[in-house]
Formats: sequence, structure tokens, C-alpha cells
Amino acid sequence: MSEEAMATEEIMDGVYRALCEHGYAELTMQDIADECGKSKSLLHYHYDTKEDLLVAFLDGILADYEGRLACRADRPPAERLVEFVARFVFTPEEDDRESFHLALLEMRSQGPFNERIQDQLDRSDELLRDSVADILDAGIADGSFEPVDVDRTAALLVATLDGARTRQITLGDAQPAASYTRVVAEEALETIVDPLLVEGVDRPTLAEALER
Amino acid sequence: MSEEAMATEEIMDGVYRALCEHGYAELTMQDIADECGKSKSLLHYHYDTKEDLLVAFLDGILADYEGRLACRADRPPAERLVEFVARFVFTPEEDDRESFHLALLEMRSQGPFNERIQDQLDRSDELLRDSVADILDAGIADGSFEPVDVDRTAALLVATLDGARTRQITLGDAQPAASYTRVVAEEALETIVDPLLVEGVDRPTLAEALER
Repeated sequence: MSEEAMATEEIMDGVYRALCEHGYAELTMQDIADECGKSKSLLHYHYDTKEDLLVAFLDGILADYEGRLACRADRPPAERLVEFVARFVFTPEEDDRESFHLALLEMRSQGPFNERIQDQLDRSDELLRDSVADILDAGIADGSFEPVDVDRTAALLVATLDGARTRQITLGDAQPAASYTRVVAEEALETIVDPLLVEGVDRPTLAEALER
Repeated sequence: MSEEAMATEEIMDGVYRALCEHGYAELTMQDIADECGKSKSLLHYHYDTKEDLLVAFLDGILADYEGRLACRADRPPAERLVEFVARFVFTPEEDDRESFHLALLEMRSQGPFNERIQDQLDRSDELLRDSVADILDAGIADGSFEPVDVDRTAALLVATLDGARTRQITLGDAQPAASYTRVVAEEALETIVDPLLVEGVDRPTLAEALER
């Protein structure tokens, strides 16, 4: 990895930790500088404003995600779909992940007031829906899924999993038994995914997908 | 209505409009006073802090909602379930409703840092899930629904509709055709609700429920 790329990675890790620690609304360039052990002036050398840095950060997350999806494109569609669902599950013990998603939620509630942040959020939504639609198309093409309206099914699944995550990170004691993301992922597999599978096609269980 | 109750209603309308206008994070008692045409000192006479006022506001919304649910308890379960789903649908043209839910989302992202606000949000989640569970229980009891795990199905449906709403209010151009809440409500009816209905049981369409 080049020195430049290493520095970028350290800065992005710093943004992640600073978001976990301070949330989005109150986040300063100094917080990020502290978390990545660099000077504020170095950050400003690379990124004019905090907004520039956050847009680059969101961009990096999305590029990572696109890369990971591309790696898995040759696996059976049913397996890929269960893994997509499993990726939304997390236990309340995963503190950092919860704090990070809470900061993202804050960012989303501010999104409509900031065009560049909103563009990244829109891209993220499209990427998620397109990923599901691609998996569904692949499954219909290879005969493992029943034909469905892939765009509408993708919108349903993404909304369901996102809703479960939002509820899990924002609620205290009111969670369903187990956790929101776990309960909803199980139910989504049984109610939304299973009816898609052509008879005789198996899928991994949620537990199996979570162990990978 | 007593003078006291009228004053309370005016204040609560002011909170609603102030949230639509200013969002949650930056909201001041002065903003609320301006929106309801009362003095800040009068507000402080009734509510010590902004937090007290917001907790009372959330409490009022939930009490209203409980009252509305109670009124409908004698109608056919399939009809009540479709109406529950329809209540989450809104067009992007409903600006106020969108602004209000954006302010609520902001409040939710801050919720975990404020116990009293979080308690109200937890109550709201339980109320939503309990409403669905009650409708499902009633439908299973009168033979119009197939037997299912009502708590898990309720968690799935609430997460799905909440997720669609969050995506609709936070996304710009990336919406699915129609709107997120509309597409997901249609799909949720077909994928989650229809398989619950015993053969021969009809339900209103989404369009019918929206017209009521």
C-alpha cells in the first residue's frame, strides 16, 4: 500500500471512531484529528471542509461494499440472498457497530439539508436495492427463484432490514425478545425469501450465514 | 373543552409546527412559544424544561393513537390490518408530515442519550407492535387468519413500514418509482398480509384503505 493510501486509511478509520464516539451533529475536525493521531491542518490539507471529509468517508464505505459484492457474484443466489439478510443482524453487544449506525442515522436525519451528503445516502440506497435485484435476477435466470417483480421485492427487503436496524439501535428495553434485527431477519427469510425459492432449492439458515 | 385543555392543545400544536419548522436538535422554547403565540414564561410555567414539554408532546401523540385504535376494535381484522399498513403511506407532497417525521427521526437518533425521551419511543414501539399483535390475535380467534407467531409477525411488519418511512423521508431522487412507503406497503400486503388470510377471506385494497 502506498504511503498516501495508508494515510487515507488511517484518516478514514479516524472518521469511523470519531463518529462512534461523538455522533454526527457535534463532530469536529479536531475530534477526527484526535482519533487518527494526525494534525487538524493535515486533515485540512487533504479535505477542505468537514463535509468534504465525510463525503469521502461515505464514498469509501460504498466502494468497499461494491467490491465485496463483486467477489461473491459466482455463488448460488439463495446463499447470496441469505448472506445479504444476515449482514444486517447484530447483537446489542456490538457497541461500536451500534454507535456507528446511530451516527449514520443522525446523518440521515440531516441528509435532506445537505445535498452532497444526501447524494451519498441515495447512492447507498440504490446500491442496496440493486444488489438484491441482481441476486433476484440471477436466481430467476438460473431457475432457483420464482419469477417476481425484482425491484419491488428489493425495495421491500431493504426497507424491512433497515427498519429493524433503526429500531434496534434507537430502542432500549422495548426490543422484541432476542433482538430486532435477529427476529426480523428470521421472519424476513421465512416470509419474504422462502416463497421465492423454487421447490427443491435449499438455502442456508440464518445461523449458518452468521457464522461465515 | 376547558380553558386549560384548550391551552394545552394550542401548545402541543405549537410543538408540532416548531418541530416541522426547526427540527429537533436546534429547537428552543422560544421557537415553540413563537409557533403557539404564547410567551416563553407561560410555557415554562407549565413545563419546567424543553425536555418536559417534548415528553408531554410524545405522550399526547401516543394517547391519541391509543384512543383511535380503541375506536376501531370491532371491525374485521383484515380491514384493520390493511388500515394499519395504509397509515404509514404518504406522498412526497405531504411536506409537513415529512418534516415532522424527519424531526422525530432526529429525536430517535438522540434517544439513547436521553432516558425519558427513549422511554416514550420505547412505548411507541410497543404500542405499534401490540396493535398489530392484537389484530392478528383477533383474526386467528375469529378464523379469518391462519395461526402464526403474532409477536414475530408484528415485529416484521412494524420494522418494514418504519423502514420504508425512514427511507422515504431521508432520500431524495433515489426513491423507487411511486414512493417508498407506497411501494413497500403494497408489497407488504401481498407478501406478509395475504398469506395470513384464510381462503375465502378478502381484504380492502391499499387504495380503498387510503381513501377512508
